[in-house]
Amino acid sequence: MIAFDPTEHPHRRYNPLADQWILVSPHRAKRPWQGQQEAADNTQILAHDAHCYLCAGNTRINGEINPHYEGPFVFTNDFSALLPNTPASTAPSHPLFQQQAVRGVSRVICFSPDHSKTLPELSLAQIEALIQVWQQQSAELGQQYRWVQIFENKGAVMGCSNPHPHGQIWASNFLPDLPARADAMQQQYWQQHGSNLLLDYVQQELAQRERIVVETEHWLAVVPYWAAWPFETLLLPKAAVERITELSPAQSTDLARALQQLTIRYDNLFHTRFPYSMGWHGAPFDGNHQPHWQLHAHFYPPLLRSASVRKFMVGYEMLAEAQRDLTPEQAAAQLAACADIHYRRQSESGI
Amino acid sequence: MIAFDPTEHPHRRYNPLADQWILVSPHRAKRPWQGQQEAADNTQILAHDAHCYLCAGNTRINGEINPHYEGPFVFTNDFSALLPNTPASTAPSHPLFQQQAVRGVSRVICFSPDHSKTLPELSLAQIEALIQVWQQQSAELGQQYRWVQIFENKGAVMGCSNPHPHGQIWASNFLPDLPARADAMQQQYWQQHGSNLLLDYVQQELAQRERIVVETEHWLAVVPYWAAWPFETLLLPKAAVERITELSPAQSTDLARALQQLTIRYDNLFHTRFPYSMGWHGAPFDGNHQPHWQLHAHFYPPLLRSASVRKFMVGYEMLAEAQRDLTPEQAAAQLAACADIHYRRQSESGI
Ligand SMILES: O=P(O)(O)O[C@H]1O[C@H](CO)[C@@H](O)[C@H](O)[C@H]1O
Ligand SMILES: O=P(O)(O)O[C@H]1O[C@H](CO)[C@@H](O)[C@H](O)[C@H]1O
Repeated sequence: MIAFDPTEHPHRRYNPLADQWILVSPHRAKRPWQGQQEAADNTQILAHDAHCYLCAGNTRINGEINPHYEGPFVFTNDFSALLPNTPASTAPSHPLFQQQAVRGVSRVICFSPDHSKTLPELSLAQIEALIQVWQQQSAELGQQYRWVQIFENKGAVMGCSNPHPHGQIWASNFLPDLPARADAMQQQYWQQHGSNLLLDYVQQELAQRERIVVETEHWLAVVPYWAAWPFETLLLPKAAVERITELSPAQSTDLARALQQLTIRYDNLFHTRFPYSMGWHGAPFDGNHQPHWQLHAHFYPPLLRSASVRKFMVGYEMLAEAQRDLTPEQAAAQLAACADIHYRRQSESGI
Repeated sequence: MIAFDPTEHPHRRYNPLADQWILVSPHRAKRPWQGQQEAADNTQILAHDAHCYLCAGNTRINGEINPHYEGPFVFTNDFSALLPNTPASTAPSHPLFQQQAVRGVSRVICFSPDHSKTLPELSLAQIEALIQVWQQQSAELGQQYRWVQIFENKGAVMGCSNPHPHGQIWASNFLPDLPARADAMQQQYWQQHGSNLLLDYVQQELAQRERIVVETEHWLAVVPYWAAWPFETLLLPKAAVERITELSPAQSTDLARALQQLTIRYDNLFHTRFPYSMGWHGAPFDGNHQPHWQLHAHFYPPLLRSASVRKFMVGYEMLAEAQRDLTPEQAAAQLAACADIHYRRQSESGI
């Protein structure tokens, strides 16, 4: 009888942060693709676009004029999904019809005035400035709101309606669904094992060295053992940190390096502005020390085999279980093998 | 002070089948859209396409020749994500690295030989034939496998790589992630309330009549109170039925009518072949009576405002919580107001 081989045989893996199983079908990676092709994101983009509502000095849809900003620029989303003044709702009348009025705020962060340069093409100093804004915004909004969700949608395929490099911050008076699950799972692990789930995980990854994409002095990026998206990564500090506001200056500076190295590898994999949604999870702003929590960022990129062939999380994935076509170890090896100089820079300098 | 108004004010609703909260931001529906546009699916399609690997008499990628089938045609997926002969895996060595070898089978169902006619354009007799195949396949695979997932990905935007109307069946020796959650939630409700979650829900919807899209003698289709996708629907029998194999002949015949009426309304909403992923959930094939289970189908369509503007479940949705821009009641009213004769038929007959 043949022995089980995870690079050949269908199996499931368990995501202990999300309490979720993922189906891995590594033999399926060779399936031909005849479906929708994405437009590869390699169009020439100018440093300033007169029609962009995020560029410095331009007028937004509501008539406001952007300042001539030079670093990151934050403003309130003109179409916020969350609003600060919602009146309280009445108690639900039936257990199957539960609702809650919510309060919050949605902001936009332009990463830099340059319309053409996404995160991997910014300088380390520019990335550090962005990290500082993430920290300031979290500190400010965390005083009023329990949860501050920092995220970036990058690329048209990820619903991003403007190529100007920008992210968002949605703060809310409730703990949203997925962070609530991450909170419960880390809490449960803490109670069962007396240690921090993600810190234990970091130790294992550093020992096994099979899924590491980037390692810097203070940070580790891996394709997690339980990744659902083909090139999903988890970025986290190697030492205990509960919130993005609690990073030391050395950890913050080093985070700029880790972010730059990770996103350069993404762009280099298929020679495109690699689309993704990314965001940060840390302990809720409840004022307490929450030792079961470890700060981390998730990167969820959709591309599978080239700049134009993506993974669709549809049918089986929406109704039964997330499914992937290559192993996390294979994905990590591909990313780790990519150069750490951006491909557009390589061609500029003639390397 | 203003009173809370669910058509104006941001709120969350709770999905008791999935144990999940959804953010509803009804004031956001008027946001302008400058991002990716989908190609409206209105191209002329021939009844037989010599290059289609699903058409009758054509050769598939593996060299097999399709028979000259006249009704639904089922074959084993040439690139199955699940395989019947996986060897057993070894026990996990660490609680953070859990895996299971899995066994199963993936099949494809062509709905009819006609390459050009999707579900809403099939005759009632053709839809009944499809329902019978769903039942036969579930009965056969349910003898060997615990879970039989019937689903359809429709449209290029839903990862469907071939316009020939077809669905899939993936059977597995494990209960996948999402059905396992639906099972646990229905079980919990049964224990707490001594009644069936979805049957109680049907009664409420029939009384409130605010979210009904289609009602036939035996079936009800609603935009559920907790819908995440803009025009998501839940289709279920009004009387207790645990599995698709346990429908009475009258319920099966009537299901063809309900499916036709629902999918015609979808197509009529934006005058396009309305894309979606849909699939069935029923009691697992464990051989037992499972009174907490009620058979149901989920329809998850991505379109939001037109045939070319979709909802993206990205950033906030992937990292924090699903979010919608119109209320389920508004979506249900729009669908219910659509004609129940297909728009391509109306124009053919000059109505
Ligand atoms: O098997 P297909 O139709 O080629 O593939 C499609 O449906 C599958 C099941 O939902 C998904 O895993 C794939 O990502 C999708 O492209
Ligand atoms: O606010 P944006 O960037 O226009 O919108 C994008 O991100 C939001 C937050 O993830 C999503 O709700 C929208 O569906 C998406 O198009």
